[in-house]
Amino acid sequence: MMKPPSILVVGLFALAGLDSIAQPATNTAARPQRPPPLRSPEISADRQVTFRMRAAKATEVVVAGQWPDGRAPLTKGDNDVWSVTVGPVAPGVWEYSFQVDGLSMIDPANPAIKPMREPRTSILHLPGDPPAAHDFQDVPHGVVRQHTYRSKSLDRLRELVVYTPPGYEKSRTRFPTLYLQHGNGDNQATWTTHGKAHWILDNLIAQGRAKPMLIVMMDGHAAPPGDPANRFANNTVAFEHDLLADVIPFVEANYRVKTTAAGRALAGLSMGGGQALTVGLNHADSFAWVGGFSSGVPASETVAAALEAKAGLNRKLKLLWIACGKDVFLLQRNEEFIARLREKNVKHQWELTPGNHSWPVWRTYLAEFAPKLF
Amino acid sequence: MMKPPSILVVGLFALAGLDSIAQPATNTAARPQRPPPLRSPEISADRQVTFRMRAAKATEVVVAGQWPDGRAPLTKGDNDVWSVTVGPVAPGVWEYSFQVDGLSMIDPANPAIKPMREPRTSILHLPGDPPAAHDFQDVPHGVVRQHTYRSKSLDRLRELVVYTPPGYEKSRTRFPTLYLQHGNGDNQATWTTHGKAHWILDNLIAQGRAKPMLIVMMDGHAAPPGDPANRFANNTVAFEHDLLADVIPFVEANYRVKTTAAGRALAGLSMGGGQALTVGLNHADSFAWVGGFSSGVPASETVAAALEAKAGLNRKLKLLWIACGKDVFLLQRNEEFIARLREKNVKHQWELTPGNHSWPVWRTYLAEFAPKLF
Repeated sequence: MMKPPSILVVGLFALAGLDSIAQPATNTAARPQRPPPLRSPEISADRQVTFRMRAAKATEVVVAGQWPDGRAPLTKGDNDVWSVTVGPVAPGVWEYSFQVDGLSMIDPANPAIKPMREPRTSILHLPGDPPAAHDFQDVPHGVVRQHTYRSKSLDRLRELVVYTPPGYEKSRTRFPTLYLQHGNGDNQATWTTHGKAHWILDNLIAQGRAKPMLIVMMDGHAAPPGDPANRFANNTVAFEHDLLADVIPFVEANYRVKTTAAGRALAGLSMGGGQALTVGLNHADSFAWVGGFSSGVPASETVAAALEAKAGLNRKLKLLWIACGKDVFLLQRNEEFIARLREKNVKHQWELTPGNHSWPVWRTYLAEFAPKLF
Repeated sequence: MMKPPSILVVGLFALAGLDSIAQPATNTAARPQRPPPLRSPEISADRQVTFRMRAAKATEVVVAGQWPDGRAPLTKGDNDVWSVTVGPVAPGVWEYSFQVDGLSMIDPANPAIKPMREPRTSILHLPGDPPAAHDFQDVPHGVVRQHTYRSKSLDRLRELVVYTPPGYEKSRTRFPTLYLQHGNGDNQATWTTHGKAHWILDNLIAQGRAKPMLIVMMDGHAAPPGDPANRFANNTVAFEHDLLADVIPFVEANYRVKTTAAGRALAGLSMGGGQALTVGLNHADSFAWVGGFSSGVPASETVAAALEAKAGLNRKLKLLWIACGKDVFLLQRNEEFIARLREKNVKHQWELTPGNHSWPVWRTYLAEFAPKLF
């Protein structure tokens, strides 16, 4: 429609340091001199990665990365800039922190921050060749949407992230919805910003391997910290109230989605896996598809009634999928839970996989779970 | 539709430390012991604010806040936890950093991080009573949407944030669009996450003071850092290519928006104000509404042709709005630019306001500018 300028506009001004920084308000028009931005991480064509950080008074700076042998000391060079080049680093979406004299922190030159309850972790994304299941590919893309809502159950503002699949906007049909929860250290934005759930689904849908679906991602930390009334002694109970009484009605009022159990799945990882199994099994009339990834599985008494034959779980559930890695500290609890399901003749799929308690594993779980849905 | 459980589910398991942290992959199932999460900032009813940070080896920890007299030292207490209580702090959306032995960093206990090119700043949001123009209020709300797109102009993946107003989903009409840019230190997410542009518009629309409009927020750092081909020596030129050849076609293919100059506005702050004035004045056939907030105004030669009478700016533009605070280091350049507009008889509105180069001022500019549009 509009063409870019065909004549290069020349002689434009250079802007340096025109940004707003956190500093006390002053009445002076003087602008503080600041050093030029650092590049960190800088990724070369052969996947060597250079990390840099400016720290004048530090005596030790280390990068602690999630990739194999990911720990490396930085060396101090000119202008108080510490740096190290590592690699080649394998393709992946990796976490890393800087440790400055033992203090863990994000890389202050990297805008890609893992959304966390206590943010100390940056993201290093090395796309694969060919692209991985979680990489952005040139396929139709959905949209990640942010909502703030006032939870009546919890009496405070809360954040919600919703993925809508490609084609949602122009369709007239109702879509199924996967409610997908994060773990204890993370928040509602982690499954997209770091987990790449939106790109995993974009790719699966483009390949015809998953049905177009919405993904709804809540903040799993539902119990207010320091709540004096202590209305929700347990975080899973607070989550359950918010999900059932606030979030599902919000989603179903604002999105074209199916409103039957067959059109709703509930899954999560770690703490969120415990939430999904607890709420899902106790509300099989509302969710016909339930998944637990490396879950903090429910305690026996929490789901005891749901597991009895008279509760009709085998009739109501279309899928109960539980996976855990061999190197996960929750494995024994998962195995005990599976033994219980067998004892009660509750139909399920159990996957004992390689891997530890980490996002590279959870991305593969989503890529395996989503095609089974709906 | 579904009711929360009427019987409190009791005896649920407690989950502690089930989160994924950046650490080298290991083959052990052992879980590292970690200290409990800190609350920071903790806001009391009388707007006293307590900041806390765990730092074992630090010799000095200071909070540097944007509110008046916002600098305060923290004191080390038990378990290596530093803390300070300040206030009462005035209502607002304030920036703050911790300075640990001189190193500026985010508050690692606060998930609210100002989106920045070099993230070192956390957000302290104290809603007003009555609510401020930028506070979440119980009015109909729009949606903030995130897109990743492959820019053909810049040959790389880029991020885009789009606000759609309340009612957009269910309407059949085409909406006008404000393209709104951030400053040098920030990125495409800053106008919403920190600037609260979405809540400002929600409130203005609810009051009938602004027309429902979309807001499109690009990453203003268009020139690739260290680009060996140096195709875009100037960042504003790179931005212009991406805006005109990639982003506007993307927005107009994916959203129900007006596709005439009368339905498009272009504005920005600081560096983004320079981008808006440069591109806007040179492309008045595409944007009939142009705004510069505390702008790095264009150099003379950049817009010289556009300011000549034969370019027909007064006929094409419905609004050229320029504002700058009295305590901004760019004020003199803005005044020189205004003198030039007067000399060339270019119609404009000029606002010399109180305030410095900061987000509290830019929020008020958006609240003043948006009602003048469309």
